[in-house]
Amino acid sequence: MKAAFIQTAPVFGDIEANVEGAIKKSLSLGADIVVLPELFSTGYQFRSRAEALKLSEDAKDGLASVRLIETAKKARCHIVAGIAEKAGDRVYNSAVLIGPKGLIAVYRKAHLFWNEKKIFSPGNTPFEVYDIGAARVGMMICFDWIFPEAARTLALKGADIIAHPANLVLPYCPAAMLTRSIENRVFSITANRVGVEERIKGGRLKFIGSSQIVSPTGEVLASVGKSKAAAGVAEIDVKQARDKHITPLNDIFKDRRRGMYLV
Amino acid sequence: MKAAFIQTAPVFGDIEANVEGAIKKSLSLGADIVVLPELFSTGYQFRSRAEALKLSEDAKDGLASVRLIETAKKARCHIVAGIAEKAGDRVYNSAVLIGPKGLIAVYRKAHLFWNEKKIFSPGNTPFEVYDIGAARVGMMICFDWIFPEAARTLALKGADIIAHPANLVLPYCPAAMLTRSIENRVFSITANRVGVEERIKGGRLKFIGSSQIVSPTGEVLASVGKSKAAAGVAEIDVKQARDKHITPLNDIFKDRRRGMYLV
Repeated sequence: MKAAFIQTAPVFGDIEANVEGAIKKSLSLGADIVVLPELFSTGYQFRSRAEALKLSEDAKDGLASVRLIETAKKARCHIVAGIAEKAGDRVYNSAVLIGPKGLIAVYRKAHLFWNEKKIFSPGNTPFEVYDIGAARVGMMICFDWIFPEAARTLALKGADIIAHPANLVLPYCPAAMLTRSIENRVFSITANRVGVEERIKGGRLKFIGSSQIVSPTGEVLASVGKSKAAAGVAEIDVKQARDKHITPLNDIFKDRRRGMYLV
Repeated sequence: MKAAFIQTAPVFGDIEANVEGAIKKSLSLGADIVVLPELFSTGYQFRSRAEALKLSEDAKDGLASVRLIETAKKARCHIVAGIAEKAGDRVYNSAVLIGPKGLIAVYRKAHLFWNEKKIFSPGNTPFEVYDIGAARVGMMICFDWIFPEAARTLALKGADIIAHPANLVLPYCPAAMLTRSIENRVFSITANRVGVEERIKGGRLKFIGSSQIVSPTGEVLASVGKSKAAAGVAEIDVKQARDKHITPLNDIFKDRRRGMYLV
């Protein structure tokens, strides 16, 4: 199957333009699964919870989801995208998994980064895996990467692919995602954004791009630079993620010594 | 405090020479803690369990331990070293923690790699942390690195330093140990060996060296090459490992969502 990410340069608050740009690119890739960045439709740096609530959308009926569902139908693909999700009077930093038949699942970011804690409610959905036919897909968002338990839980639940929308600012994650793929023998697709936001004085954020697709052996199958909008596509064979052997005598899941681990 | 590793080029089966070489180097470093490779005294590739049993030693009274205890006393330091440990009719791939007053602890490798499964008994000691005064030290051995739960368990139990004797042959670990240090905000000291062993026909093993000391922020404080015996020393401040904040609002231990993780 063909897997892809789109690395975007969103304009804060311009949901329509951000969504249309991502959709146009999605339609051009001919991929079976496309991963978009965290908060791809709104931009990242909300000034307040009230502002986030105003710009957030329903995961099913919001403009971003509706347009992505149309796109998934037209391109016969699956899409994972990060949105600011409105749910009553709460806002979640969420990822939606969308297929040709509509919204499949919502994952709400479990580990909020820095000032996100002032804006979003902490996620209340499990790390879960969804069978989209060609692959089993799990979602995690950006800072979730630093908690090995997030990717591990998805992999133990059977994920072939970890779809990882991100708005990375720290430098560590791209290299760490090789470790996440290797230690779980899964594909990972990190879709990051580029550009700078300084909507809060002194709170300048530079996003590091470096989106990538990594194989279960830690091979970087596709990657792009730090500063430009771009896309990456790779042919992947999910069977590779279903064999957890690293040597003929080591299945890294069966070799786990669960009784020795502290949670 | 001053932390160090010694990267060795052992001669298979020549325990006396291997031990004397490592001791000489240890005494020259003036370090507070010295980490030696996995199976530093015997070499790696045993032809059979019987051969390993013959070359293995008691963790307390064996030549390697006795000489390391003398060294720790003389240099007023702590030493972590990998040995083939004889315990009744079993052989473990173990690490000993030794101080000026003697043997402090034994860790028996939990996750055996490839043909080690035919030679050694699987470890039956917990991942544990020992307070040596200047620091709290946890041990794991080589292939344990690929299981994030090993380093995580040591860090959750309070390790400042993960002492990591290794005989690495796969290329992944040195980069992955940056992730292990970052995700747990601990120091890690990987002491690997160099050289080639082919004591079993067709079973040629090339050890990759690349020993290193990594800080809690993923900085490589000392590292050496892939092919020569060498040593590395770094001044470390364990306080850095006791602050788990990655941002003012993110303590990566307190931020864990334990209820969401599968073990």
